[in-house]
Amino acid sequence: MKFSCYKSDLTEALTFVIRAVAVKPMTPILAGIYLKAEGSMLEVQANNFSTGIITRIPVNTEEAGETVVSGKRFQEFVRNMPDDTLTISEEENLLSIDSGGAHAELLTMNAPDFPKVKTPETDRSFKIKTTVLRDLIRRTVFSVAKDESRPVFTGCCFEVHGDKISLVATNTHRLALAGAKLNDVYDDYTFVVPAETLRGLMMRIDPKDVENYVTINFSTRYLTFTFDNVFVNSRLIEGMFPPYDRVIPSSSTTRVKVKTAEFKEAVEFVSLMSKETEYNTVKFIFADAGVEISSNSPEIGGAVKNVEARISGEELEISFNVDYIVDVVRVIDTEETIIELNDRYSPAKFTEPDNDDYIYIATPVRT
Amino acid sequence: MKFSCYKSDLTEALTFVIRAVAVKPMTPILAGIYLKAEGSMLEVQANNFSTGIITRIPVNTEEAGETVVSGKRFQEFVRNMPDDTLTISEEENLLSIDSGGAHAELLTMNAPDFPKVKTPETDRSFKIKTTVLRDLIRRTVFSVAKDESRPVFTGCCFEVHGDKISLVATNTHRLALAGAKLNDVYDDYTFVVPAETLRGLMMRIDPKDVENYVTINFSTRYLTFTFDNVFVNSRLIEGMFPPYDRVIPSSSTTRVKVKTAEFKEAVEFVSLMSKETEYNTVKFIFADAGVEISSNSPEIGGAVKNVEARISGEELEISFNVDYIVDVVRVIDTEETIIELNDRYSPAKFTEPDNDDYIYIATPVRT
Repeated sequence: MKFSCYKSDLTEALTFVIRAVAVKPMTPILAGIYLKAEGSMLEVQANNFSTGIITRIPVNTEEAGETVVSGKRFQEFVRNMPDDTLTISEEENLLSIDSGGAHAELLTMNAPDFPKVKTPETDRSFKIKTTVLRDLIRRTVFSVAKDESRPVFTGCCFEVHGDKISLVATNTHRLALAGAKLNDVYDDYTFVVPAETLRGLMMRIDPKDVENYVTINFSTRYLTFTFDNVFVNSRLIEGMFPPYDRVIPSSSTTRVKVKTAEFKEAVEFVSLMSKETEYNTVKFIFADAGVEISSNSPEIGGAVKNVEARISGEELEISFNVDYIVDVVRVIDTEETIIELNDRYSPAKFTEPDNDDYIYIATPVRT
Repeated sequence: MKFSCYKSDLTEALTFVIRAVAVKPMTPILAGIYLKAEGSMLEVQANNFSTGIITRIPVNTEEAGETVVSGKRFQEFVRNMPDDTLTISEEENLLSIDSGGAHAELLTMNAPDFPKVKTPETDRSFKIKTTVLRDLIRRTVFSVAKDESRPVFTGCCFEVHGDKISLVATNTHRLALAGAKLNDVYDDYTFVVPAETLRGLMMRIDPKDVENYVTINFSTRYLTFTFDNVFVNSRLIEGMFPPYDRVIPSSSTTRVKVKTAEFKEAVEFVSLMSKETEYNTVKFIFADAGVEISSNSPEIGGAVKNVEARISGEELEISFNVDYIVDVVRVIDTEETIIELNDRYSPAKFTEPDNDDYIYIATPVRT
């Protein structure tokens, strides 16, 4: 095997693919990245059996071939090569990387032993714009559960219904729901995708590339995302989300409109104090023409910031885990945020003005 | 106590002073920073008994007073206040910080309990340009010993002799020696200053402020650095450096001249491989018109880079801990570096062309 390529192309491919290299590989080959040079393309694969990624970059192949090399070390040497172009070759179980007079060589592993990423056999599929999918992930994935006690909540639930798609994520104390329109009409599909796969995918999508589409194929246990020269295969999480409609409050007694940026800055400021407290709690007092955001610790002190707001309905004092609030104001894209509340024990609902496609629910902390 | 000041002034003062706040304070007050507002000045002090720092910033005092507050938390709130100006006041054991509608308050400690930084009573002192002192520290301090088994080697040895000063640092496997001329003539002084104090001082000196002087006062056990509104008091390390002149080779059988930047880049590249090896070792082959720099690991692979060099004398193959080489080429200020060697078991000497004021010695690794 021998080929030359741009350092930037290979670096980008490795940064993406490395996410599917096992952190604690069961066998050495699972710490590896599979390379296959043929014609004008290099195929780069990684597979940890939960996620498998294939990506392709343009290369100049002098001698076709395939090999497997330690992902971490290959990435590090490629990134630190002095020149913009690299020549890479394999001979007698040594992969050589040459660039601007620098030479590195890495022991290789046996290519046929590598568990190649498989395409699921299915005819169920749908298409969505890459940037639309990116936004759906960005605005929900942070709400997944961190602990694995109920695996289904460590993923985002995809729901396709007619020409609509929605993604839902919840850890049972908060919930994020984002929807979008599809260009075609499909059957009803529901499946749960691991958050880790979605975070990797989100990083790979260029938010400016607004005319690009990703095809999603899926079977009962696997799905694949295909776009450009990228192919991501992921296991699906078994299980179903319980009906979450019932946790979305249908009415409210207090309705608040705040400037998103100002509200976010104030919550982040007060979080400096709340993080010193046991439950990371921030208190909100919605009254008159503003919100008072505060946090106190008897051993340390306190912090408070007032933010202007338009409030209709009842005055209310309510406390939240500050992360639940900081996370949502970071993904609200509109200048203003709407907060709807009932009482200090009931969940708050965050939405964007004139947009039904995004709902975030946060359960308060009982103080 | 009540005063107002610029956020940037107070942030800068706290960043510097916080270095003298104890990491593991024996009593709560040692985690504190002492503040004293009077007239147009705020005095800020921290003291961990090894190093004590006093600095002053311009403020507008409305009510004079003194207090002590948690250093870490005060720094964090000051840094995150929304406006460029702050109003700070103390009442009933609460320090309030107000800025742009944000309010934070921190419990205070009893000011008289704070161990204030003391000036040593001595008439022994000398003056040196701040930027000259900064360079002397920068080019030696990285060579101090990391382990505390022989405390004297965890500091830099200052030697004043007539109108000359030199700083020496060694961990017994390498040694850095930097010298400079003073503007006056002094008696012979020798003392050892903890590296930690010097690193903090170095950060505080503006390398562009070339007309500024620092006064160094010292007694048997303490010394102080005084310049601008800064006063740093440090314990001295007991003990003496053994005579180090004898480890500086007086002759060489191989003399090498390399381009500093190119050599540095090559050594850093090969270090990607050497750090995977047990002793972090890099091999240098000085021969013909160049240096071959390489590192190999039987389990992983190898890396090699050639650099042009002018070599006179014997050809030589020699190995070093890569850090010993990377560290010195990062502080060599000249375009070229001179390396003088004898055999593969003898120390190498690094110098700058036409400059007797800097010598670095590195002991090779026996392979």
